[in-house]
Amino acid sequence: MRLVIVGGVAAGTKAASRARRVDPGAEITVYQEEPEPSISECGLPYLLSGVVQRREDLVARTPEKFAEKSIEVRVRHRVERIDPDTKKLSVRSLEDDVTFEDSYDRLIVATGARAVLPSIEGADLDGVFVLRFLTDADEVRGYIQERSPKRAAVVGGGYIGLEVAENLCRLGMEVSLIEAEDRVALAFGPEVTERVEEHAEENGVRVHTGAKVEEFVGGGRVEGVRFRDDRLETDLVVVGVGIEPCVELADEAGAEIGKTGAIRVGKHMKTSLPEVWAAGDCVETLNLVSGTPAWVPLGDTANQMGRVAGTNAATGEDTLEFPGVLGTGIFKVFDLGVGKTGLSEKEAQDAGFETVSATIEATDRAGYYPGVEKVFFKLIADGSTGRLIGAEAAGSGADKLTDICATAIWGRLSYPDLVNLDLAYAPPYGPALSPVVQAATVLSGKFDCVRRGLRASE
Amino acid sequence: MRLVIVGGVAAGTKAASRARRVDPGAEITVYQEEPEPSISECGLPYLLSGVVQRREDLVARTPEKFAEKSIEVRVRHRVERIDPDTKKLSVRSLEDDVTFEDSYDRLIVATGARAVLPSIEGADLDGVFVLRFLTDADEVRGYIQERSPKRAAVVGGGYIGLEVAENLCRLGMEVSLIEAEDRVALAFGPEVTERVEEHAEENGVRVHTGAKVEEFVGGGRVEGVRFRDDRLETDLVVVGVGIEPCVELADEAGAEIGKTGAIRVGKHMKTSLPEVWAAGDCVETLNLVSGTPAWVPLGDTANQMGRVAGTNAATGEDTLEFPGVLGTGIFKVFDLGVGKTGLSEKEAQDAGFETVSATIEATDRAGYYPGVEKVFFKLIADGSTGRLIGAEAAGSGADKLTDICATAIWGRLSYPDLVNLDLAYAPPYGPALSPVVQAATVLSGKFDCVRRGLRASE
Repeated sequence: MRLVIVGGVAAGTKAASRARRVDPGAEITVYQEEPEPSISECGLPYLLSGVVQRREDLVARTPEKFAEKSIEVRVRHRVERIDPDTKKLSVRSLEDDVTFEDSYDRLIVATGARAVLPSIEGADLDGVFVLRFLTDADEVRGYIQERSPKRAAVVGGGYIGLEVAENLCRLGMEVSLIEAEDRVALAFGPEVTERVEEHAEENGVRVHTGAKVEEFVGGGRVEGVRFRDDRLETDLVVVGVGIEPCVELADEAGAEIGKTGAIRVGKHMKTSLPEVWAAGDCVETLNLVSGTPAWVPLGDTANQMGRVAGTNAATGEDTLEFPGVLGTGIFKVFDLGVGKTGLSEKEAQDAGFETVSATIEATDRAGYYPGVEKVFFKLIADGSTGRLIGAEAAGSGADKLTDICATAIWGRLSYPDLVNLDLAYAPPYGPALSPVVQAATVLSGKFDCVRRGLRASE
Repeated sequence: MRLVIVGGVAAGTKAASRARRVDPGAEITVYQEEPEPSISECGLPYLLSGVVQRREDLVARTPEKFAEKSIEVRVRHRVERIDPDTKKLSVRSLEDDVTFEDSYDRLIVATGARAVLPSIEGADLDGVFVLRFLTDADEVRGYIQERSPKRAAVVGGGYIGLEVAENLCRLGMEVSLIEAEDRVALAFGPEVTERVEEHAEENGVRVHTGAKVEEFVGGGRVEGVRFRDDRLETDLVVVGVGIEPCVELADEAGAEIGKTGAIRVGKHMKTSLPEVWAAGDCVETLNLVSGTPAWVPLGDTANQMGRVAGTNAATGEDTLEFPGVLGTGIFKVFDLGVGKTGLSEKEAQDAGFETVSATIEATDRAGYYPGVEKVFFKLIADGSTGRLIGAEAAGSGADKLTDICATAIWGRLSYPDLVNLDLAYAPPYGPALSPVVQAATVLSGKFDCVRRGLRASE
């Protein structure tokens, strides 16, 4: 059985490794456009500043390592066409610009996503970058080394923009973050946004919101950014306004594309084409909270999807299922951890839920234990059923609170279920009652006891 | 309605506060033997070393604070007898040794637990202490200040013993930890025990296991500890071999005592006596994994129970339920966090489960992210149903892994459910796939795929 995998980052390489274990006899080839496979894209912002010092640390496995497991990884190769009827591929070697034909018995599309560079005048100026691949990071680093920019503008206040802003600050640059919407970290509620903006500003980032970039200005090399009536002088621009799924190859082959614009797959990661699976940032999945299609391009999810696609492609059967996602995510900006699972209150209301929510300020350990820090926590539930819909956390231990809630939503728990949840307590690890329990208790107090004719509880 | 609460630490004071909110008109009195109410007992080891600097930081609320909410807290008062027929109490004031009578409409017993001082010869010597109350900590601290002990022996290798050993080390003492069983931290599997012993030794604690103490030696003041054929010279002994529930008061009043030796209550925290509830370290509850009665005296659980007892006593109805516990717990010894939820593999097998388990060594963040540390993780499940039974973690982020698993067990998830669990990933917060997902995947590989005729997965 010849298995071809198009794309060799998280989903593609995971699928390859998994297929190899499931079927030791399979012939497995991975085509990857970039010069390295299995890049840890999430680490790229940290490579800019040297927080991650060695470029090679972001390459989880080299083609040579894959070869040891009899997985052929061909980098700098672009698959240009899939013919699902004849099961043939047209592949271009980017090194020597030669096109050749390959064939497959089974195929996995893991073409990932690319950074969007919006059609803004001057976007092609020298010194305007996106950051998606290791090669992008190389270019930004090269430019920094060569030009020693003193001022940087980061366009886009999502988590990548925020991470890039932090890391450029670490290099001593004067950094401005420019966001078109009226706040950064839009996936979160306004309480979290506020904390993120404040923390970024405290750490030296100038945050401009409601600032749609109209032009990058410069003669050959970027010198400024124009937005509203402002013009900001800058020596470097990194654009992180979003990414889009790479679906052209699958689309042209006739694979169904979903509402979100990503490739549509079922639970078994099968596309609408025979013997073709897809996984990772190029596919859409189900948001298990809203029950609607969702495109959530994240490395951990890509890994999990890759495992399912790799297994099923290797067996040729519907062996494993990938049920969907909750939309869980986290990022760090300077010392602030910011996590989320499920839907924000606005997203939930847009999805038709009647929400109830509790927000609390808690601590990350017993109040008397040294080093105690604050954490903001918000718990969102369905008002009629009590079912958990989402949670947001910002501050120390945000990752733990997010993961507790992700697991609770995964288990379809409701907020009254969490009031007596038996979590781990010791003074260095939390307050006597976890912020999750505290928030659930607040909700119970507000909505449950009131119904029973009691006063609101603590 | 007159509500009397016997005991004013976690469960008692929580019940009082909660009852006040539910019933603003109730007359509420709390009797407390110790000189302060609402003591954070979990913080006591840290007070010995000065990690917690101020004694008053361990008193969450003073009687004056309770008085502001019209809760009368009478410290240094011991309730000596309950007459459930006449609803009268006999109370002794410990200050002036006067006994008086009080009465109640409803009563909550929150008498807690006391440290066990085993009947070892010499246990009454000067310099031999237990550590349960703030007043115990005062005594140990006074002795240390007066005598400047250079060597200390801690008897008992449970979490309190380990915490005390760490904190005495911080004072520069030569510390020996003496455990009768063949390993410390018995509630955990041997993989964790090994790490704990190693870590304690690395930090200067001499760990003696299989060492049942036969005698404390000394003339008036303790000078040595005899065990096996050894005699260890010491200037100070802290005994932390366990605690036992204070049930005499309830027992003599006719309340049913459970199999574990603690007061038996139903889900609504009612005892077998009319109009008498009980909560906290003096009651037994249900272990939701094994389905058997369990006595798990912990501060967070006491708080949760107190809320239920306080509400139900205030309404006089079965308003809230406390379903039971998982046996979740965590402690820190030096830099090692050690957490557990559910049953250990041995406990599970003793309870009749046919277990499967996966143990992994993972990291607390992406391998390339600065400060990366190791964490040991073990996931235990029922082999026939896949249902999660327990988890143990030791190392950085053990608290998060424990809480994820506690929530998963609370939601009655099985290990296949965890393989695609959508947790929060970013390089500073974990490896791309959480150790929980990794371990569940190992289990799925071992037990699930094998059944389907696949090879073991990664």
